Amino acid sequence: PSNKQHKYRIASIPADGIGPEVVSAAIEVVQKLSEVSKTFEIEFTHIPWGTAYYKEHGRYVDENVLDVLRSYDATLFGSVGAPDVPDHISLWGLLLAIRGPLQLYANVRPVRTFPGTQSPLRNAKAGDIDWILVRENSEGEYSGHGGRSHRGQVWEVATEVAIFTYVGVERIMRFAFAQAQARPRKLLTVVTKSNSLRNGMVLWDEVALKVSKDYPDVKWDKMLVDAMTVRMVNNPESLDTIVGTNLHMDILSDLAAALAGSIGVAPSSNLDPTRKNPSLFEPVHGSAFDITGKGVANPVATFWSAALMLEWLGEQDAKERLMEAVENVCQAGILTKDLGGTATTKDVTKAVCDEIARLG
Amino acid sequence: PSNKQHKYRIASIPADGIGPEVVSAAIEVVQKLSEVSKTFEIEFTHIPWGTAYYKEHGRYVDENVLDVLRSYDATLFGSVGAPDVPDHISLWGLLLAIRGPLQLYANVRPVRTFPGTQSPLRNAKAGDIDWILVRENSEGEYSGHGGRSHRGQVWEVATEVAIFTYVGVERIMRFAFAQAQARPRKLLTVVTKSNSLRNGMVLWDEVALKVSKDYPDVKWDKMLVDAMTVRMVNNPESLDTIVGTNLHMDILSDLAAALAGSIGVAPSSNLDPTRKNPSLFEPVHGSAFDITGKGVANPVATFWSAALMLEWLGEQDAKERLMEAVENVCQAGILTKDLGGTATTKDVTKAVCDEIARLG
Ligand SMILES: CC(C)[C@H](C(=O)O)[C@@H](O)C(=O)O
Ligand SMILES: CC(C)[C@H](C(=O)O)[C@@H](O)C(=O)O
Repeated sequence: PSNKQHKYRIASIPADGIGPEVVSAAIEVVQKLSEVSKTFEIEFTHIPWGTAYYKEHGRYVDENVLDVLRSYDATLFGSVGAPDVPDHISLWGLLLAIRGPLQLYANVRPVRTFPGTQSPLRNAKAGDIDWILVRENSEGEYSGHGGRSHRGQVWEVATEVAIFTYVGVERIMRFAFAQAQARPRKLLTVVTKSNSLRNGMVLWDEVALKVSKDYPDVKWDKMLVDAMTVRMVNNPESLDTIVGTNLHMDILSDLAAALAGSIGVAPSSNLDPTRKNPSLFEPVHGSAFDITGKGVANPVATFWSAALMLEWLGEQDAKERLMEAVENVCQAGILTKDLGGTATTKDVTKAVCDEIARLG
Repeated sequence: PSNKQHKYRIASIPADGIGPEVVSAAIEVVQKLSEVSKTFEIEFTHIPWGTAYYKEHGRYVDENVLDVLRSYDATLFGSVGAPDVPDHISLWGLLLAIRGPLQLYANVRPVRTFPGTQSPLRNAKAGDIDWILVRENSEGEYSGHGGRSHRGQVWEVATEVAIFTYVGVERIMRFAFAQAQARPRKLLTVVTKSNSLRNGMVLWDEVALKVSKDYPDVKWDKMLVDAMTVRMVNNPESLDTIVGTNLHMDILSDLAAALAGSIGVAPSSNLDPTRKNPSLFEPVHGSAFDITGKGVANPVATFWSAALMLEWLGEQDAKERLMEAVENVCQAGILTKDLGGTATTKDVTKAVCDEIARLG
């Protein structure tokens, strides 16, 4: 029995496609970190939810999904989706059955040009792209409301209803202002679309103004989501922390990662900032069936996600060591195919473990 | 009295900000074209709708707005919006009071790297970005449904309801497939978000599949809107014609213009493809109050919009002559400040008129 101060129990849900490959790689490096750590140990429990489970049980997750996850300190997630199941079945069946119900309302996506990657923008200088994207993760366009009547008939009507609550908007806005405040530049950009969407988006504007009064040292501005894409391309250095709705930030976070040159390494945290529920950490990439089973998937997005998990758990040192190890390995050119290299998932994982051992 | 075969009557609505400056510049070059043309003449009628009109009459447009516009062959529009009126009041008061009600359901936005501009993408080769973006322009996220209850209270709920009808989706899909078919590459990308939005977006998928059967020679694929931003950045040459919802294409068309390096020159057509109602043509840029009245606004987006109008009216030759003149002038370096030049609106307008005269 170990005498380390902190013990963590993590649920791992590798799920579909390359999920199992990158999650087991991440578990390996985190175990290595805990071996060299004097302060913490960590135990991963495999949870078999995903498309295979669905085919066997007719549902993507166990009935008491939330209770199961609440018995762990955090969840490390792979990716969900399979070619033979409609995407909206698999995503609502698994990932969206967790994010909203567990009130993981802050989806945080750091984006920067990573060693081994280069911004596709001609004029972007090193350090220009170093953003924190904060996505509202529990309501809005992903509330799940809407329907179809007269399905398939020429007089069919289908709706998608975005629902915004004062509570939901205020809590993400406070979270974003606090994030911005904790960063050196103290800059926040609030993304809405209140010129054409006159209800929920105007509520966003109003709440932003109200919450801003509590953060007088944060410099903030507002952007329409369409104009925001232009600013990201033309003036990346003018941005730092960015907050927006579930759908808007889904779109902008993919764009951000592409502009940073690092879509393959993009991580995300799905946080319950109240810490009543365990948070979930996952790579932004999908299940990538074209390369599944080939051993060539890039594990870096999951390593980075695991680093965010360690930080959330309070293991700041371990997080920094992990990021340093990963960056050194990328810098040394040990890169998977998507980053122009020839390394396998195993090569990168071993190199990162060795580097962790070396850093000590 | 002229003996020219074709006579057109155009409503011009310059409206706010730099709108009047760029619309009067465009009228000047179109008049010049009609002078040298043997086939058509054109008459512009000024319609004073906009924020000044609103302040005087309490409404942005005349009561019988649709009848007024129906008495012309087309509308040339400037831009609407003023610093002292909430954007959603001005936009729904004027522009959105026309687009939907007149059933101008196809918003077409050609995007390419224009002479005098350069793509900000390091690897984009000349010709890589040459896209036609087709935006559904009459329903979806801009249906105008939704509301706010308990406004300003902590238990407030606000909704934005996107409404998709079979008829609305099918007509834009047919339009987009036909556009793609008429282009040399015959490529169409249908943008949706049917993994998280399970109603209207799934309808989009179903209609795309159905309509595609009538265009067997069009190669088409589907993209999720978030992943589409990555493809636009990383593989611009793989795209040609693109279709999507009102909001998705609002966002992607701004991104597209920025990636082409030419947001300042981006034009748009708001078409009723049935030709029951007169179509509307407008620059994509807004009212730009920071440079209003300084005489430095770039008129090229409005020239290009006017060219699309001439083409829609059937004056293909005039359209081509206008585009040739504008491109020659840009190529010659007669550029406004936003494109890195020092020319005024008047300089560019005069140069284009002279070039039209020279081309004959
Ligand atoms: C997997 C999918 C539901 C998801 C989303 O749209 O939220 C993904 O695109 C993401 O960015 O996390
Ligand atoms: C002016 C505004 C309502 C508009 C829109 O959002 O449709 C603009 O951004 C556009 O792209 O035409």
